[in-house]
Amino acid sequence: MKSPRTERHLIGALNKGTGQLEQDASAEEMEGRGWNLLHEDLSLPAAVLYRDKIEHNLRWMQRFIDAYGMKLAPHGKTTMAPRLFDMQLQGGAWGITLATAHQVRAAHAHGVRRVLMANQLVGKLNMRMIADMVADPEFEFYCLVDSAANVNQLAAHFQQRGLRLKVLVELGVVGGRCGVRDDSQLKDVLDALRRSRGVVDLCGVELYEGVLKDEESIRAFLTRACEVTERLVAEGQFARTPALISGAGSAWYDVVAEEFARGAFGDAVEIVLRPGCYLTHDVGSYETQQQRILQSNPVAREMRSGLVPALHIWAYVQSIPEPDFVVVGMGRRDAAFDSGLPRPAVHFRPGGALPREVPAYWETTKLMDQHGYLKIAPGDDLQVGDMIGFNISHPCLTFDKWRVLALVDEKYEVVDLVKTYF
Amino acid sequence: MKSPRTERHLIGALNKGTGQLEQDASAEEMEGRGWNLLHEDLSLPAAVLYRDKIEHNLRWMQRFIDAYGMKLAPHGKTTMAPRLFDMQLQGGAWGITLATAHQVRAAHAHGVRRVLMANQLVGKLNMRMIADMVADPEFEFYCLVDSAANVNQLAAHFQQRGLRLKVLVELGVVGGRCGVRDDSQLKDVLDALRRSRGVVDLCGVELYEGVLKDEESIRAFLTRACEVTERLVAEGQFARTPALISGAGSAWYDVVAEEFARGAFGDAVEIVLRPGCYLTHDVGSYETQQQRILQSNPVAREMRSGLVPALHIWAYVQSIPEPDFVVVGMGRRDAAFDSGLPRPAVHFRPGGALPREVPAYWETTKLMDQHGYLKIAPGDDLQVGDMIGFNISHPCLTFDKWRVLALVDEKYEVVDLVKTYF
Repeated sequence: MKSPRTERHLIGALNKGTGQLEQDASAEEMEGRGWNLLHEDLSLPAAVLYRDKIEHNLRWMQRFIDAYGMKLAPHGKTTMAPRLFDMQLQGGAWGITLATAHQVRAAHAHGVRRVLMANQLVGKLNMRMIADMVADPEFEFYCLVDSAANVNQLAAHFQQRGLRLKVLVELGVVGGRCGVRDDSQLKDVLDALRRSRGVVDLCGVELYEGVLKDEESIRAFLTRACEVTERLVAEGQFARTPALISGAGSAWYDVVAEEFARGAFGDAVEIVLRPGCYLTHDVGSYETQQQRILQSNPVAREMRSGLVPALHIWAYVQSIPEPDFVVVGMGRRDAAFDSGLPRPAVHFRPGGALPREVPAYWETTKLMDQHGYLKIAPGDDLQVGDMIGFNISHPCLTFDKWRVLALVDEKYEVVDLVKTYF
Repeated sequence: MKSPRTERHLIGALNKGTGQLEQDASAEEMEGRGWNLLHEDLSLPAAVLYRDKIEHNLRWMQRFIDAYGMKLAPHGKTTMAPRLFDMQLQGGAWGITLATAHQVRAAHAHGVRRVLMANQLVGKLNMRMIADMVADPEFEFYCLVDSAANVNQLAAHFQQRGLRLKVLVELGVVGGRCGVRDDSQLKDVLDALRRSRGVVDLCGVELYEGVLKDEESIRAFLTRACEVTERLVAEGQFARTPALISGAGSAWYDVVAEEFARGAFGDAVEIVLRPGCYLTHDVGSYETQQQRILQSNPVAREMRSGLVPALHIWAYVQSIPEPDFVVVGMGRRDAAFDSGLPRPAVHFRPGGALPREVPAYWETTKLMDQHGYLKIAPGDDLQVGDMIGFNISHPCLTFDKWRVLALVDEKYEVVDLVKTYF
């Protein structure tokens, strides 16, 4: 029995950070509720996406990648929000990048039709889930391989299903994450791929430069990837024309674009970049990288504006037990804390007009599971029940704390609820 | 229109870590699927709860608290799993402790009828949500206050609704979290409470000793709480007979029991302890504390056994790019990392008999968002596609990464799927 009211289409009534729902509601049923953040219509803490800023960032990155004549496959693991995948695809993205079989399944169920799983596919059920999707002729799917063992496992599974699987060989560096370290490992994988051609088809080369920390090593790694790709093209190793080459997390996409642009590929290779965090951006390590990019990359320099933070976690002031010490209702359950703590950005007193920027010296000093500590100055005008919007660092580990995020317009009206599938 | 197939009763088809579901399914529809972890019927990574160990821990803590003649209100924020709340309540718990209005709503919707919200209630919608539940005469609810400002806000809201709210006054320490620091702040709160008596009713005293790190300070804090409670009883400040005194996180519940047992309360005070992490336990800081408790607490010493780790994150070996360096498909998206990394516990090769303990020198050295790094010795018998079960540290920040956890029996058969409501 198929029910049209599946979890896929409903906003559950028991999620944190939404307005009050008496029962699960469809997206259509959400319209016209007139929820406004500043009217306290959301239960705080709440994760709030600013529509205009999201759209700005979306356009910015698409223009950047377009300027290089490359393809954008935003890493969807950051948000795991099909509503945002839709916006990215409609904005010109080539496909969506994902990290696990589960994530691919969530995207496929929401209509995404081209996925690069920037990861190895391992395990019986994970392979079966992907095979079920690959059986859909409308669905174009790629994953990575970096060992003959994995190639052989994939070949056995997909052979049995009578299906073909498209893969990219992953290049890696010693001490890095996955990926073949050297030509000898690469040869093992290519040998295994040759034996399984027609079942597991080599379509390109992939790397993740973010395992390295300095620009020089990253450029050298990218140069190696270009050389390997050129060689494999020349050897006729690829089952796809053009072949694919893919790299780029959210920190070094400019360097990846610059180096891949130098590849002697001609029309033989299609270049796919995969940043994911640009959509909401942050005020942490990605902002630091963005400043570097705006200064050093000629394309970014010409674009005048940069990425802007587009996600706030809003929380109430819960207690001011000491004159300079504030406890807010936001903790490790609500925001990433692995790459800098959330930073207070705007303050709003219910009943007031508009949020105001907070003093630069206000600072989050600690997050517990459900609480945050804020350092202010004695005498600052702050009281229990006031609302504070926090900028975050590391979007990936912030999104995964929310099943629903509120998308608001410039008047703080909730125009949509964005579901996530972590 | 009420639908019986609400999100509350269904397991969504797009969750990670479950078996393959073609559509959302009710708990009843899950029975008879015969999923077994060792048959690779779950998509890894998956969070696996061991039923026998969960039940052991549940009985252990209830017996410990019973031995002191106190009440157990397990902190439900740890698991946010109504299925586990049920087990705790049926096992003898007095009620469930929670941290936010949203959490209370999720518990209430699943039939929990006594809640201690060990937190301040702040904000218009949060108050409205709680007021809606307090209007249910079957529902017994307490929250904390630590400022006259908050008392006055609560009084205004609940007065308007024609409802009464039961509160405990929270005691705190300088540099700690919430809670009145001294008698002067306490007096302000009590004055505000006196003005709003009949609307906001003082029913007891609360503290969270876990903001302190050494036993001596904790015992002093607990002594202060006993003295304050005795004094307020003598002054007739409480609207509840017996009054409540409550403390205890998952690290110092033994010390709290010992000190509260010394209180000169007689029948005038009911003592409520609130550990939450005991249900799954861990191999991190809570295990360290448990060793201390088993050595130093006379009741625990007599109980012969202790708490046992009851939660594993299972992941596949995804790549072995260097002889002693393994990448597994489990990352910061799947396990807590703020209090020690997950530790490899058991290894299983699909098709084999039973999982075996891993060598003691295997070690998780790093977690990225979706990957974990494992250090082994060259030549160890491990291959791509093998499964590893990891013990975790910090249950709270592990549970919140999973919408569904698999409850398995001693044969690794999935006997239930446990939904969470973060």
